[in-house]
Amino acid sequence: MTLKEKINAANEEALRRIVAANPVLVDVAPASEVVPGMRDKLILHSGPPVTWERMCGAQRGAAIGMCLFEGWAKDAASAERMLAQGEIAFEPNHHHATVGPMAGTITKNMWVWVVQNKAFGNRAQCRQVESFQQFGDYSKEALSGLQKWRDIWAPTLRAAVRKMDGVMLKPLIARALQMGDEMHNRVVASSSIFANAIAPILVDCGRSKEDVVATLYYIGNHPFLFLGLAMAAGKAAMDPARGIEASTVVTAMARNGTEFGIQVSGLDGEWFTAPSPRVKGLFLPGWKDADAGADMGDSAITETVGWGGAVIGGAPGILTFTGGTAEEALGFSREMRNISVGRSPDYLIPALNFEGAAVGIDIRKVMQTNTVPVIDTAIAHKEPGHSIIGGGIVRPPLECFKKALTRFGEKYKE
Amino acid sequence: MTLKEKINAANEEALRRIVAANPVLVDVAPASEVVPGMRDKLILHSGPPVTWERMCGAQRGAAIGMCLFEGWAKDAASAERMLAQGEIAFEPNHHHATVGPMAGTITKNMWVWVVQNKAFGNRAQCRQVESFQQFGDYSKEALSGLQKWRDIWAPTLRAAVRKMDGVMLKPLIARALQMGDEMHNRVVASSSIFANAIAPILVDCGRSKEDVVATLYYIGNHPFLFLGLAMAAGKAAMDPARGIEASTVVTAMARNGTEFGIQVSGLDGEWFTAPSPRVKGLFLPGWKDADAGADMGDSAITETVGWGGAVIGGAPGILTFTGGTAEEALGFSREMRNISVGRSPDYLIPALNFEGAAVGIDIRKVMQTNTVPVIDTAIAHKEPGHSIIGGGIVRPPLECFKKALTRFGEKYKE
Repeated sequence: MTLKEKINAANEEALRRIVAANPVLVDVAPASEVVPGMRDKLILHSGPPVTWERMCGAQRGAAIGMCLFEGWAKDAASAERMLAQGEIAFEPNHHHATVGPMAGTITKNMWVWVVQNKAFGNRAQCRQVESFQQFGDYSKEALSGLQKWRDIWAPTLRAAVRKMDGVMLKPLIARALQMGDEMHNRVVASSSIFANAIAPILVDCGRSKEDVVATLYYIGNHPFLFLGLAMAAGKAAMDPARGIEASTVVTAMARNGTEFGIQVSGLDGEWFTAPSPRVKGLFLPGWKDADAGADMGDSAITETVGWGGAVIGGAPGILTFTGGTAEEALGFSREMRNISVGRSPDYLIPALNFEGAAVGIDIRKVMQTNTVPVIDTAIAHKEPGHSIIGGGIVRPPLECFKKALTRFGEKYKE
Repeated sequence: MTLKEKINAANEEALRRIVAANPVLVDVAPASEVVPGMRDKLILHSGPPVTWERMCGAQRGAAIGMCLFEGWAKDAASAERMLAQGEIAFEPNHHHATVGPMAGTITKNMWVWVVQNKAFGNRAQCRQVESFQQFGDYSKEALSGLQKWRDIWAPTLRAAVRKMDGVMLKPLIARALQMGDEMHNRVVASSSIFANAIAPILVDCGRSKEDVVATLYYIGNHPFLFLGLAMAAGKAAMDPARGIEASTVVTAMARNGTEFGIQVSGLDGEWFTAPSPRVKGLFLPGWKDADAGADMGDSAITETVGWGGAVIGGAPGILTFTGGTAEEALGFSREMRNISVGRSPDYLIPALNFEGAAVGIDIRKVMQTNTVPVIDTAIAHKEPGHSIIGGGIVRPPLECFKKALTRFGEKYKE
């Protein structure tokens, strides 16, 4: 077997595993209970490894927020001191079978969605998505949402999810893709039908009527509710495709606001990084491009599994968030096919006459066609202390794929 | 002022009224309480007036079902006898500020959605949508859904709707159009977000936990839930545009399975009819074109208000129901502009870069361009006793528009 044949077979196996994934929401739980390796004074963050010194403003702000949320510090100044003195450890979510939106910060008392890939048995976690602390805002108001999540919404959802013996996400996502979602920044349909599915169970899950009503308002009015579920489902789907000998399929794309990093199946455990790119998009009133930090978040796991940019052509409603035209969006989803191993038999694009989404980004095809993936994403401020300021489209640096392919060539010599 | 100027001004006024509509769900109630002119031994039906003798199989079956539902007859044979002997009166829904899906049958104890157009004060009603009795199935199983609607779901929804002091439908519909709904046969998003909005209120509306849970399951799993609301909203939006001197705008398109009828603003109260056309589409397993009855239902009120065919290009998810391609669907929505007075500022099509839906079908433009509206619809069996057998696209007979324009010419001589 030539190396090329070996790679193709390995990539087919990676594709087989990704599309066979069967993500099921099995729990909502404090990170300390379910995230492997979680411990006190540890902040998990998005993207490849990073230190406080090199950390971007938004992720610094989010880390300050977590110190306050956990009660490790009494105010922002002392939190910043602790962080600068190395009293709090930082590790990437991806090293803990976990993902997090934007700054991605997860600590022991942050409750997370727990998704099990029933086809392979592995689990992945993602924290709740909101528009404040994860963007670097550590104000009392920003943290109050995390507290309500911890004290009311998450425990109530846990009771219902356990009573339901899990919620199958694959059919739910497949339906939402036909309702204009793309499972990255447009998750209004999936959020809504997830809320529909869980509502009758919530009423009778043993929690107080007050908590049930509060949780029904929360899940029925959160336009990004399902993103945490989609990210956990994406991570749970991708992890079994890691470490396949000779596979050139991308198993993670993640950004910490300083660096963009990718991981590749046949080069498991290694990160291939380059400076985090800038996002092109639309800003909320009062903000402009000069205020923006660079690309950030683990959410691009959705693009690796065939959502986000791979299906954005079927989700033109997202254009009010990202900018661009319906034709461009369709073009993005067509483009993703040129750099992918195959198509999803389950995740279909109605606007492209129900053709399957592109799945399994191949670093060889990226380099051959000089085409990097399309990612739609939110925009954080460059300084700590701010909520969401916009959304747009971003392209990973070609450099990441180039480094990965070079390393692949070294490791797999013919 | 020339007649042409007078017509143009009248049509602008019709358009102004239609787009100014502000439909709000204000109640769910038995028809006897809220439908003007409702009385005992009366069946309201879809489409223009029709007699038992000329009635199509599906509408006959539905009428039999209503006799059993109301307890007017003890079995189908005696119901049929009563109906044939003229013991039960038939009148069109449209003559009672009301609309009904498919056979459209409404009797005194059928609960209806009540929508008030807050911009004009008028109200309109529509019955619940299901896939059985309204298609002519009068079996015990088919009627059991109507009974649960009457005894559990509708009274529980009434309690919540009243507690909410109404539910504003315009913003909800605008959102759903960006989630791949077209408000006629694709209403999964609007159904879902309506269920989200009402869920927390249901929990605390004074009904038993059993009824609340049953209603949450009902509203969270009914793909056509919102169609009844969309139809009532459409009727409430169109009625203020009736009777505008010299307007050539279509105020109703309705079919009884025997005849297709249209009404025109400047010719208020008159029906212009032609034989009901056949639907081109897809059939559920086991059924074929030869089994199908002709086009039926008041649901084409949605097309008159700028939904359905006018926005189907933004709802390619519907193609699994109707057949056709995404490109054809976009073409339909573009075509509707050629025969309409203007565009909606509220109901936008994301796939067409958020351009407004075509509103106000103009019989002059239909005749000038030889283009009839596009309607997407369900398909009933030609014989009584069957549930839904398919869905597809239908075009009204040009003859209806020709007759209307001829009559218009007689009435409005220069």
